[in-house]
Amino acid sequence: MKILQMKVGKTGPLCIGLDTDPAYIPDCVKKDFKSPQEAVLQYNTKIIEATKDIVACYKVQIAYYEAQGIKGLEVYSKTLKKIKQEGALSIADIKRGDIAATAKAYSQAHFSGDFEADIVTLNPYMGFETLLPWKRYWEQENMQKGAFILLHTSNPGRCDIECLPTCDNSTVFCKVADFLNNYYAQQKEQNKEYCCPQLGAVVGCTNYDEARFFRDLCPNIFFLIPGYGVQGGDARTAAILLQNAGGVVNSSRGILLAWQKDEGLLQKEKSGNLLLEDMVCACKNKVLQDTKMILKEKETL
Amino acid sequence: MKILQMKVGKTGPLCIGLDTDPAYIPDCVKKDFKSPQEAVLQYNTKIIEATKDIVACYKVQIAYYEAQGIKGLEVYSKTLKKIKQEGALSIADIKRGDIAATAKAYSQAHFSGDFEADIVTLNPYMGFETLLPWKRYWEQENMQKGAFILLHTSNPGRCDIECLPTCDNSTVFCKVADFLNNYYAQQKEQNKEYCCPQLGAVVGCTNYDEARFFRDLCPNIFFLIPGYGVQGGDARTAAILLQNAGGVVNSSRGILLAWQKDEGLLQKEKSGNLLLEDMVCACKNKVLQDTKMILKEKETL
Repeated sequence: MKILQMKVGKTGPLCIGLDTDPAYIPDCVKKDFKSPQEAVLQYNTKIIEATKDIVACYKVQIAYYEAQGIKGLEVYSKTLKKIKQEGALSIADIKRGDIAATAKAYSQAHFSGDFEADIVTLNPYMGFETLLPWKRYWEQENMQKGAFILLHTSNPGRCDIECLPTCDNSTVFCKVADFLNNYYAQQKEQNKEYCCPQLGAVVGCTNYDEARFFRDLCPNIFFLIPGYGVQGGDARTAAILLQNAGGVVNSSRGILLAWQKDEGLLQKEKSGNLLLEDMVCACKNKVLQDTKMILKEKETL
Repeated sequence: MKILQMKVGKTGPLCIGLDTDPAYIPDCVKKDFKSPQEAVLQYNTKIIEATKDIVACYKVQIAYYEAQGIKGLEVYSKTLKKIKQEGALSIADIKRGDIAATAKAYSQAHFSGDFEADIVTLNPYMGFETLLPWKRYWEQENMQKGAFILLHTSNPGRCDIECLPTCDNSTVFCKVADFLNNYYAQQKEQNKEYCCPQLGAVVGCTNYDEARFFRDLCPNIFFLIPGYGVQGGDARTAAILLQNAGGVVNSSRGILLAWQKDEGLLQKEKSGNLLLEDMVCACKNKVLQDTKMILKEKETL
C-alpha cells in the first residue's frame, strides 16, 4: 500500500475503474473488433497507455469479466498483465471473503498466476480470520501486495448490516475499523518507521459529515473511495476522505462513458464515425478534470 | 430450491463438495493425465457419474478453480456442465456480494453462460439490495434458480461480525434471518401452495444447541449445511438442521479424501498402484455411509 500512497503523491488520487461492460462501447466502434471481448481489451489497453502517468492505479471489477465467461476472464487477465507491463498498479475488485483452505485458494488465485493483482478488495463478513491467508503475501519480503477491506460502502443497503448499532454502543463497521486500527498499531510497534499498513479500507464517497467521521475514525488507514461521480459522491467529500493517511478515489462509468458527455462525440457516434481513440481521449480529459477538481477541494480544506 | 428439496426426499440429504484441490490427487494417479487440471476434471466427472443417484446435489467451490487460473476455470465450467448433463443439481459456492450493475454482472456470470449453476451462495454484508439482481432469474417462469445466503457459518471468526449482538437485543445473523423469513411470508401470501422459498440459508454444522436454535429461528427456510465431517460437525447436529423445511449437508474433503481412510488404498498409493477408480469407489462408499448415519440420527429425533 505504501507504493500506492507514494504514487498518489506524484499523480494525484484518481483510480480508473475498468468496469468495462461491453455495452459501454457503441456498436460503430465494436464492429472493428472480432468480438465484444476484444473491443473491451483494446479499450482497456488504450486507456492504460494514455493515463498511466496521470492516475494512481486501476481498479478492475472482476464481475464484468466473469459475466462474459472464460473469454471475459481472459480479457481480465490480459488487462491486469497490461497494467503491470506499463509499471502501473492494479486493484482487483473481487470482494472475496471465505475461510481457511478456501481463502488460501482465493489468495493464490488473485496474488499469483493468471489473475495476479497488486491489491485486492475483501469482504470481512465471515470474520477477520478470512484475511489471514492473504497477509502471507505481503508479510513475505519484497512482496508489495495489499488489501482493502469493506468498511462503509456507498449503497443504501449499507444500513442493513454494515451500519447496524451493536449492544456496546458501537456499530458493525466500527468493529472492522477497530480491527484495522489494531493491525496498524501492532505493525507500528514492530517498526517505528512504519507509515501505511498493507490493509486499507473501502469507504464510500457518500456525504461530507460521514466522510469527516470515517477519516477521524481511521486516521492511519489508506482508503479506497468508490462512489465518486456517477454514484453521487462529490469532490469535497472525496477530499475529506483523502486527508491524513490518504487514499485513492475510484471513478468507473464517469470515465469510461465520458465520451457521452461530449456533444461532438455523440454526433460522431450517431453518424457511425466514433473511434476508440476519441473515447480514450475523452477518458484522459475527464481524468485530468476530476483530478484537478479533487485536488483543488483538498487545498481549500 | 423446491426441486432440490424434492431430490433430497429421494436421495437423502448429502451434497458432495467438489472443492477439488489438485493436491488431493496423489502423484501416482495424476501422472496418467496430461495436467493436474485434467486429473481434477476426471476425478470430478467420475464422482458425478458414480454418485448422481445417491446424492442430492454437488457444491462446487469456485476458489479452488480460480486458484488455477483460466485452465482451472475451464475445469470449473466443464464440471458444472457435467452435473447438468447428468440431470443433477449444482450449487456454485461463490459467496459473491456486490451492488447494482456489479451484482447484475455476477448474476449473469453464474446463472448463464460458461459458469451457469442452479443455485449460488451469496454474502449479504453490503445489504439485502445485493440479492435483487439474482432474484430476476427465479422470478421468471420456468427458471429453477436459487440462492443460499450466509446466515451462520461454522468457522470461529463468525463471532467477529455474524454473531455480534445488536442494540435491539438481536444479532447480525438475526437480521439476515428476519429478511429470509419475511421473504418467505411475502411469497406465501401471494401463493398459498408455496412451500420452499428460492432463498435458502447457509447454516454451519456447529453443535447441537446452535442447530436447535437455528432450526427454530427459520423453520420454513431450506438450509445448506457445511462443516460436516472434517470441520467437526456430527450427524446428530446435521439431523437437527434437516428438520422442518430441511436442507442439504455438504461434505467436501471427507468424501474427496475418503480413500486416505482405507488402509488398503494407502498401501496401493505407497506402491504407486492407486487408481482413480479406487478413489471414486471410496467416495461412493463414504457417501452411502454418511447418508445412512445422518438419516439414522434423523429417525431418532
